[in-house]
Amino acid sequence: MLTGGNCIIGQSGGPTVAINASLSGVLEGVLESKAYGSVFGMINGIEGLLQGTCLNLSEKFPTKESLEVLKTTPAMYLGSCRFKLPSSEEREDLYVKLFEFFKQNDIRTFFYIGGNDSMDTVLKLSSYAKSHNIPMNILGIPKTIDNDLAVTDHTPGFGSAAKYIATTLLEVAHDAYIYNSPSVTIVEIMGRNAGWLTASSALCKNEYFNGPDLIYLPEISFCKEEFIKDLKEIQKERKNIIVAVSEGIRNKDGQLCGAGKALENIVKESIDCKVRSIELNVLQRASSHLASLTDLDEAVLVGKEAVKQALLGSSAKMMGYKRISSSPYQIEVCSYDIADIANKEKVIPREWINEKGNHVTNDFITYALPLIQGEVRPTFIQGMPNYAPIPHLQ
Amino acid sequence: MLTGGNCIIGQSGGPTVAINASLSGVLEGVLESKAYGSVFGMINGIEGLLQGTCLNLSEKFPTKESLEVLKTTPAMYLGSCRFKLPSSEEREDLYVKLFEFFKQNDIRTFFYIGGNDSMDTVLKLSSYAKSHNIPMNILGIPKTIDNDLAVTDHTPGFGSAAKYIATTLLEVAHDAYIYNSPSVTIVEIMGRNAGWLTASSALCKNEYFNGPDLIYLPEISFCKEEFIKDLKEIQKERKNIIVAVSEGIRNKDGQLCGAGKALENIVKESIDCKVRSIELNVLQRASSHLASLTDLDEAVLVGKEAVKQALLGSSAKMMGYKRISSSPYQIEVCSYDIADIANKEKVIPREWINEKGNHVTNDFITYALPLIQGEVRPTFIQGMPNYAPIPHLQ
Repeated sequence: MLTGGNCIIGQSGGPTVAINASLSGVLEGVLESKAYGSVFGMINGIEGLLQGTCLNLSEKFPTKESLEVLKTTPAMYLGSCRFKLPSSEEREDLYVKLFEFFKQNDIRTFFYIGGNDSMDTVLKLSSYAKSHNIPMNILGIPKTIDNDLAVTDHTPGFGSAAKYIATTLLEVAHDAYIYNSPSVTIVEIMGRNAGWLTASSALCKNEYFNGPDLIYLPEISFCKEEFIKDLKEIQKERKNIIVAVSEGIRNKDGQLCGAGKALENIVKESIDCKVRSIELNVLQRASSHLASLTDLDEAVLVGKEAVKQALLGSSAKMMGYKRISSSPYQIEVCSYDIADIANKEKVIPREWINEKGNHVTNDFITYALPLIQGEVRPTFIQGMPNYAPIPHLQ
Repeated sequence: MLTGGNCIIGQSGGPTVAINASLSGVLEGVLESKAYGSVFGMINGIEGLLQGTCLNLSEKFPTKESLEVLKTTPAMYLGSCRFKLPSSEEREDLYVKLFEFFKQNDIRTFFYIGGNDSMDTVLKLSSYAKSHNIPMNILGIPKTIDNDLAVTDHTPGFGSAAKYIATTLLEVAHDAYIYNSPSVTIVEIMGRNAGWLTASSALCKNEYFNGPDLIYLPEISFCKEEFIKDLKEIQKERKNIIVAVSEGIRNKDGQLCGAGKALENIVKESIDCKVRSIELNVLQRASSHLASLTDLDEAVLVGKEAVKQALLGSSAKMMGYKRISSSPYQIEVCSYDIADIANKEKVIPREWINEKGNHVTNDFITYALPLIQGEVRPTFIQGMPNYAPIPHLQ
């Protein structure tokens, strides 16, 4: 069992509202373990580390209490990068530089929180360490609002984004239904290749509102003519139509369709009624003021599990969730071989999408509903959320 | 003093998250007064009423407790209309029809919650009643996120929208600052002629973030060249720039500039860096999950004050707020002659905008900060907000 020494942690890829909760989970795990010296934080991920930017997180967050504000802070406290680490065959100098830095600073454990590309970094670094007999634990912690990572039941960050999307859709519906004249409201949601977020709009169904009338996902090729037909059919039943559409919808030839604005224009050309499109944009991944308690609690747990795995001597693993049961909802936090995860993408199973390809089935609801349960939000000071500062600005 | 009989209430114009709080204030005031029979609700405002659509609110909300869910429900429980009531000279038949309906249903008090156009309806109906010796109390209750009504210190709905905008801006900043490369993020905010909402983005200033770097308001004519100059100046100091822009900015000839997307294109043409624009769209007026407690409490108070004024025999009045002090914040709810309000628009005073016309001064902050204090949000059931249903859907 490899313990002692220092460890380092980085964040990479696009932000979520849960990624700082995982960071705080690692820090909490380290504090509880009493097995490490300092925890260093890479500023701007592996790319920043290669330029030598790094801070001492143990000094910034010396106690469990100091971590509370971090848990509910959006985006990435440590900053991010979009950097695909080249292979060691291509650029061995980078690997030499990194492992030299680890050695000099007695860093024996490396945690990386991120999505697909970040897991690729974990895979490459751990393979290099292994082949060079460097005794380090190199571990991945998942995060992505897109929920498209393989193996794990879901990803930290997805539940909060889904909760924001479903809540916003319900509020948009209240807004859309106030006028007694026909309208089509199109809401564009993130997800280039996987429709998990767009599908989550269906979670806003309640006793008076059925949720979006139509849901278009990247998993199903989009057909303009079918869309107009669907709309006209629904217009026979109700005046106000809500459409949820993924940014990644493509036509049968695989070309991107343009999502919200494009659908707005299709409606304008074909149907005589008020039409508008709303792009949820970065708000769906940054709105810490409306996070899922389940998501944030689990995000802390995967961080703590990573520390536990490091203390057990694991490497080349990504933490993840295994679902035991949906009702009652129960998961186990566990670790998976990184080679099964890196560079793979998980899309919605076809059977969770209805036959016509314009809505989801109850199986999807059963899967996703537990993930948006519970509310957590930042404390507010003088009317505004109290977040951990953006370190580069200090 | 005219008491007894029934009363009727309607909502009109664009939605806010506080307009149902004012509706619940009226209903609470009526319950407390014990002076009325039933309260009727117009479905889709005066336009719906002319078509005879109306419901019995006293049956729907029989107790104070039943009103709680209404207070935090977004948009308009009764639905809205965008209908400018013609003058009685043009269409006396409409007036005859309305007052005949009031007479038949023993309706002696009429409340209308809305913005400019709605106050025009209140003015016209009360003038008609007066000139025809119809003993009715016809009263206006303000609402508009735009905060552009004359006489009143501010409008119900503005504080919550301002809180949403400032919070979202802070979250967008956390998102924008994660990468170590230059970027410009443009946030488009509502307000065609008055910049109150866009100016509120400045409220997100805190100890680590200065708020938007640039704020462009409809009160000041927009100049593309100045914008680029401003950006280049700020880029010398920091990598990530946040711009708040009103949908209503115009050039010196008074032509609309196109706001977010237009500014995004200007940056793309002139500066080599990542640029994106985010439109807050209807979310800024519908997000009851993030409302200002001050705003919602005051919105209830103006509703109750309207009942009080009706019982005192007032007519042709709009309720409003008079500010006694900003620090400590103190207001009085009072009533104003509707003739001083209808069809007028209040913009930001020039001295609350900085000399260059690209930001606000501390006077604006002093004015607006008290309005976003305190948090209130709906109860959540199974992970989703519990709102009052949309009646047309029931």
